[in-house]
Amino acid sequence: MKAVIISVGDELVSGVALDTNSAYLARQLGARGIEAVAHWTIGDDAETIAEALAAAAAVADCVIVTGGLGPTEDDLTRQGLARAMGSELVLDKGCLAEIEEFFRRRNRAMAPANRIQAMIPAGAKAIPNPIGTAPGIAAAVAGKAVYVTPGVPSEMEHMFANYIAPLLPREAGVIIYRTVHTFGQGESDIGSAIAELMARGGKATIGTTVAGGLVSVRVISRGADESEAGRLADQAVAEIRRRLGKLVVGLDEETMASVVGELLRRRGATLATAESCTGGMVGQFITSVPGSSDYYLGGVIAYANDMKVRQFSVPEELITRHGAVSEQAAKAMAEGCRKATGATWALSVTGIAGPAGGSEEKPVGLLYVGLAGPDGTTVHRHILPGVRETIRLRASLTALNHLRLALLD
Amino acid sequence: MKAVIISVGDELVSGVALDTNSAYLARQLGARGIEAVAHWTIGDDAETIAEALAAAAAVADCVIVTGGLGPTEDDLTRQGLARAMGSELVLDKGCLAEIEEFFRRRNRAMAPANRIQAMIPAGAKAIPNPIGTAPGIAAAVAGKAVYVTPGVPSEMEHMFANYIAPLLPREAGVIIYRTVHTFGQGESDIGSAIAELMARGGKATIGTTVAGGLVSVRVISRGADESEAGRLADQAVAEIRRRLGKLVVGLDEETMASVVGELLRRRGATLATAESCTGGMVGQFITSVPGSSDYYLGGVIAYANDMKVRQFSVPEELITRHGAVSEQAAKAMAEGCRKATGATWALSVTGIAGPAGGSEEKPVGLLYVGLAGPDGTTVHRHILPGVRETIRLRASLTALNHLRLALLD
Repeated sequence: MKAVIISVGDELVSGVALDTNSAYLARQLGARGIEAVAHWTIGDDAETIAEALAAAAAVADCVIVTGGLGPTEDDLTRQGLARAMGSELVLDKGCLAEIEEFFRRRNRAMAPANRIQAMIPAGAKAIPNPIGTAPGIAAAVAGKAVYVTPGVPSEMEHMFANYIAPLLPREAGVIIYRTVHTFGQGESDIGSAIAELMARGGKATIGTTVAGGLVSVRVISRGADESEAGRLADQAVAEIRRRLGKLVVGLDEETMASVVGELLRRRGATLATAESCTGGMVGQFITSVPGSSDYYLGGVIAYANDMKVRQFSVPEELITRHGAVSEQAAKAMAEGCRKATGATWALSVTGIAGPAGGSEEKPVGLLYVGLAGPDGTTVHRHILPGVRETIRLRASLTALNHLRLALLD
Repeated sequence: MKAVIISVGDELVSGVALDTNSAYLARQLGARGIEAVAHWTIGDDAETIAEALAAAAAVADCVIVTGGLGPTEDDLTRQGLARAMGSELVLDKGCLAEIEEFFRRRNRAMAPANRIQAMIPAGAKAIPNPIGTAPGIAAAVAGKAVYVTPGVPSEMEHMFANYIAPLLPREAGVIIYRTVHTFGQGESDIGSAIAELMARGGKATIGTTVAGGLVSVRVISRGADESEAGRLADQAVAEIRRRLGKLVVGLDEETMASVVGELLRRRGATLATAESCTGGMVGQFITSVPGSSDYYLGGVIAYANDMKVRQFSVPEELITRHGAVSEQAAKAMAEGCRKATGATWALSVTGIAGPAGGSEEKPVGLLYVGLAGPDGTTVHRHILPGVRETIRLRASLTALNHLRLALLD
């Protein structure tokens, strides 16, 4: 079974914004044995949308469209769909009630413009959107199933998972995607360690990707059913884990922060943080995990030198002598933070994110991570490549990774 | 003049990797007056590639293709192009010499597989690729210009800027993209306030997008030259600003954090933060701006209740009586933070991000923002919609926005 994914928006086709919905949908469809054969990105124009729908229906069994369901003049997907169906937009009273209810719950009045979002082509059905104002639409064009969702990724994902996926036909074959996230070595080193697994023609297709500061190994396995595809995927994942050992952070939806959090939780340990160059990013990662208040006490962002002195009783003389970016400062920050908060572990980060502030002796990218725990304090020095934002990201991940390795021991 | 951008790759169409090349090329073309009317992502299949090239040549004046020029079995773009041209692949000796030279400079032997990269359809021309092994290809399909580049973004960007852009016809027109970022009202309210501007057929095309928690108004203006297109864009931006007033956060590359930072810098003021539910996100946003150490002192992440007590001398009795998520706690956090750090302004955030922790009286999404400044302390209460991650994002932006509005006064 084949699908075409269409994303609609002037901001997408002009390159002002990046379409991430199509990749998400392609993976979700693949997991259900439905092959995305093309993604098309087009502008906000009803005629163009109608033509694309007709062309997609001619080559695919199923079409998914994202975007263009907003309440403003440039949102024309429902009009394009109506044109492709040879149908008219009609008011769906149930939808209108739901949109009004959405605003009522938020103590806001519905703007008249939002009424258009309750208009659905005659012969189509509305798809509920409990987390936004634009309902989706399920329809048929030239006998092929068409599903339209809002372009806002959170609304699209919610609608796909809860309402569209259950409507999709279950294919005979199953494709399973697994991902093994690693941290600590470059993509080519990881690639070398699993080179034979990556050779084409294996039972599972294996490749590497770099995303979000981690090197991830992708596994794509195909089987007659879930159990066969799953077994192949599990075998590949086990072999990758065996070869990469502690470089493996986690699988699939796991993140560095969720893995560290789970290790802390299992040990009944708590954590506090003292951040300089990362400015709160470590804390933000940790608290992105629901339930992180079970183990994360909080911390300090010590951005100005003076704050380091005040908050952790890092002796001013130490900073004057060694600098705020130094092994000594990282150690004092971690120990001061652990003492002040009473946490089992305290993690400190001090470094130079750039673009300014570097010197020959202390270049941009220099990082010290301090880790104070039950058995004492360690400090790790790194020189990170990249620009400000990648340095800050890598610094946050490097700090969390030192804690992960300490918790594994 | 119209262009279609085609990206080729199984990893792209399956959603395992994200295509960023098309957005880059669309912006580059737009800056040269060439409108990207569609992006198509397709798999590694010669027949599919040939069909896409023919279809693109039928609707556009110029086609740019990225990907599928590698040395392995699944790289089939040159074969697809030859098929679309009704031509055969022939060895380009100049290309072969360049590829051999590329390996020689790196002290590596050229693998036999790389020879295919010197094969070019008869009637086409190779485009040099000094930073990689795959030359690009300039050709014509059905009388329309076709340019093919490697899929590796750095090689594609280098080839486009140095070899393809100079070959593109200079259009009689220029397209300019501007973006006006707003915060504080929904997309439909913003749309209503600028409805006539958004009506189709105006001198500039105006639309709205929601991204990263902000509602942004996009302006696309076309003119005979840079000066005319720029003047039209400036007029539209000025009119949008006039209508939306303080809802406008900034333009183009500006962010909430960069705008707040610039306001603080201009006033010679400093800032400290006290975060609970956002767990460091506010600090991370502020410090994402280079040079933010000029005005940001740092702050505290008070995630556990106990940390609120310790760090800001928020009286324990206050938390017991009103709760950690309360107007009183937000006020005490902001004032305690301001006092402890000596900052001009202190911003506090306490709320319930969910999914757990909500109650009838204090639902998930409840947020208090405290702002302590030279003229006293204000506390703002909000109920934010969405799930954990969107609530945290909106909470951070809401807090920074209150500071922005206070600094504007």
